[in-house]
This record gives sequence, C-alpha cells and structure tokens, in this order.
Amino acid sequence: MKDKLTIIKVGGKIVEEPDTLAALLRDFAAIDGFKLLVHGGGRSATKVALKLGLETKMIGGRRVTDRDMLDVVTMVYGGLVNKKIVAGLQAAGVNALGLTGADMNVIVSHKRLGGDVDYGWVGDVDRVDGDALAALIRSGVVPVIAPLTHDGNGNMLNTNADTMAGETAKGLAGHFDVSLVFCFEKAGVLRDENDDNSVVAKITPDVYESLRTEGVVAGGMIPKLDNAFDALSSGVKSVIITKAEALNDLSLGSHIVCQ
Amino acid sequence: MKDKLTIIKVGGKIVEEPDTLAALLRDFAAIDGFKLLVHGGGRSATKVALKLGLETKMIGGRRVTDRDMLDVVTMVYGGLVNKKIVAGLQAAGVNALGLTGADMNVIVSHKRLGGDVDYGWVGDVDRVDGDALAALIRSGVVPVIAPLTHDGNGNMLNTNADTMAGETAKGLAGHFDVSLVFCFEKAGVLRDENDDNSVVAKITPDVYESLRTEGVVAGGMIPKLDNAFDALSSGVKSVIITKAEALNDLSLGSHIVCQ
Repeated sequence: MKDKLTIIKVGGKIVEEPDTLAALLRDFAAIDGFKLLVHGGGRSATKVALKLGLETKMIGGRRVTDRDMLDVVTMVYGGLVNKKIVAGLQAAGVNALGLTGADMNVIVSHKRLGGDVDYGWVGDVDRVDGDALAALIRSGVVPVIAPLTHDGNGNMLNTNADTMAGETAKGLAGHFDVSLVFCFEKAGVLRDENDDNSVVAKITPDVYESLRTEGVVAGGMIPKLDNAFDALSSGVKSVIITKAEALNDLSLGSHIVCQ
Repeated sequence: MKDKLTIIKVGGKIVEEPDTLAALLRDFAAIDGFKLLVHGGGRSATKVALKLGLETKMIGGRRVTDRDMLDVVTMVYGGLVNKKIVAGLQAAGVNALGLTGADMNVIVSHKRLGGDVDYGWVGDVDRVDGDALAALIRSGVVPVIAPLTHDGNGNMLNTNADTMAGETAKGLAGHFDVSLVFCFEKAGVLRDENDDNSVVAKITPDVYESLRTEGVVAGGMIPKLDNAFDALSSGVKSVIITKAEALNDLSLGSHIVCQ
C-alpha cells in the first residue's frame, strides 16, 4: 500500500484576498500527511497588467500571452502570489517550497502551436518529473506550484493551473495514493446550481453519463470532469470537487471515482 | 577533504540585459563541480516600480521598502529575474532551482529595527539552513537565490544580495570548501581604479591593511572587503572579487585569503 498524497488546486480568487488566503493556509496546514498545492493568480495578473498599461485578452477563458504578458504572469504567479503563499505556510509550520515547472525541471511543456487562435507563450504539458517531486515530498517538503512551466529552451510558458494539477497528480500516481482536490466557488457538482446543499456526493462514470444526459453537468464543467476521469484512468485514486472553505472536511464535496 | 563549492554573486546589471545574461549563463554552466548562484535585480525593480507609479527611494545604497515596494521586489526578484535565470540554466543543462529565503525556510531574517532610518520591509539575516542547502546541492540541484528572505511570521523581506551571498557561504562552510565569488563591474580590487590591468591578485589581512593605509581601498570597497574577511574567518576558503566576464578564469580576479 502506498502512502497518501493530497494535491489541492486553488484558484486565484482564494489566494489573492488576505482573509480567504489566511483561511486557506490554516486549512491546508491542517491536512495530515503528504501534500502539495497548485495555485492560480489570474486576477492579480490582470490587475498588475492594467497598472502597467497592458490590456488582458482572454479567449475561451485562456489568457493571450505575448512577451510583455509573459513577464507579468512570471512576476505575479512565480513571485508575488507564490511567495506570499510560501511565506504564509512557513509561518504555519509547513515546509513549503515554491516551484514553477522550470525549477528542478519538474514540469516541461511546449508552446501551443497551430489552431485558429495564437495564445502566445502558453504551454501544453509534456512531462512531469514525478521522481523528483516524490523525492522532495518524502524529504518533508511541501511543493507550492505556480501555473508556469518552461520549454527546456530557456522560455517560461503560461500554463493552466487545473491542467498542471491534473498532470502533477498523474505524474505522482506511481509514487503515492493521490487524492486530487479542485477547489471551486461552489461546494461541488450541484444538482441545482443555486443550492449548495445539492452536491452530488459520488460521481462514477455511470453517474457522470446520467448527469450529462439530464443536463445537470454542462458547459465548463464537462472539460473539468473529463480531466478528472482522465486523471483517474492514469492511476490517480480519487478526484474531489469542493470549495476552499470545505477543505477541512473533504467528505462534503463531489467525489469522482472509477467505480 | 571536503568537496568544493563555488558560490557566485552577480548584480542586477548582468542578469537584466539579454546579452550579458546569456554570457553569464554560459560561463556559470561551465563551472565544474558543486555551485550556487545569488543574483540581484535592483534595476528591474526600479523600472517596474516606476511603471507602476512607485518612486524608488535609496538611502546609502539601500532601497526603502514599503508594502507596495515589497510587492514589487517580491515579483521582480522572486519571479521575473529568478525564473529567467532558472529557465536559462535549465536550457544549458544545469538543474537550477529558484529559491528565496522563505522556500524550504533556507534563510530567515528579521525586519531591520531602530537606527535613524526606517528602511521598511528590509531583512537582516539571522540564520541560513546549511544542512538543507547542502542536501539539495549534493542531490545535483543548483540553487539560484533571489535577494529575498522571510521573517518566519509570514512576511517576505527585501535583503541585500551581497549579504545573502556572504551568509550563504558561511552557512555552507561546514559542508564544503567554499569559494565565494563577487562579480563587480571592475576586474577586481584595482591599484589604479582606471586600469583594469592593475588588479591586486592576492589580498591577505596584511595587504588589506596596507591598501587602506595607502588609500587604494576606500569608500564602498571597505565594507565589501570587511564582509570578505568576515566570511573567511567563518570558514569560507576563499573570496574572489572579479568581473562577470572573467568567470571562466577566476585566477584573474582579486583573491582575498586569510594568509
């Protein structure tokens, strides 16, 4: 039996406000056993870009990243947001280490090519070095991963944080029994999107199929759940969708499982 | 006999221009054996601060760091500058890992107190975790350290890069035979400040005393050499003052030695 590893992905909104960040750090510090955090930071990047006179262009929820915007996300994700989390976790007794994909070469990607849209310096993940991350984690280090990778040729690449969390979970599935937890604004996958008490507690492939047929799962939730099942089919033990405020009781969220 | 470790400190000017950065990365990659890089980034911080509408105040060569300026240096040193170096070194086959003092709690400092000047969120180093750094280095990782520390209470602190290089060298002196190399704009300590061929090749405490008496060493060079001798008295094997362009032949610089 392998050791348990909990991977938490939190969006920018949670880590960018002092109050919600403080609550997150407290709840994350309280998680037992091996753990890893992947964070976003889009709102801060947009704010800093605006102050620097750079317009933020989003296409299909993804940030178009020219050279100047790459500098902004490298500063904001890798510096401002990441180090606030790392310093906060250290104060809470968690031996955090901030990482981008370039650090120790842990996540390599390639610049997204082709398609109708040129997203610029955006990366699609090729490879996660699960051995290096697992060695760090077993030594007592808690990786805090910013949504940035590199191409191995000296370029940083802006990379989707959900994707990085999923790929990291897959890369570590051979080393640990991985629970991957996506924190959203809602309490989980809801039968009634306006009712936080309508969480679908357990989502198997059969349940997912029904939910799609019924139209309960639609729109942006479909790629998220497809990613979740992709992670499960690559050896990740469980995927949980919940809200950051419920990190101290993961049983409250939606559990996506193979069966 | 201990293994050799080379610690290079480079100022902001070198790492902020694409041409000089490329040369530095090439020369640093070519250094044999265990190594570690400490970098600055002040010019970039001043530029970004200006674009964000923040005025940079320097007192005695030190940046006054209010909350907004702390965000800027955290972004620029820990994100922009550090990740460019890390990605560049990875492309050159060096397994670089970007670190601030907060990461893995490697360098803890306290906010500078008292005195006539309030520098704000500026840190004076208390402790370097030589064991943690040595373990990373022996595992094949090359630390790339940004001039930022933390206070253990959740706050990042702006910290002088020369000081961090010196303290890191002292913290690792029990683990390695450490050569500490400060890259300046001049080729070393010069007998004639306008003649790069007048490098004083070897500076013992006696030579230092003579150079001060003669007025060859004066002004800002005095604290630098005092720091060098402080490092030597704490077990660092040698301190070299040279220019970044001469990294591939350290014999050309000034060697500060105990005897």
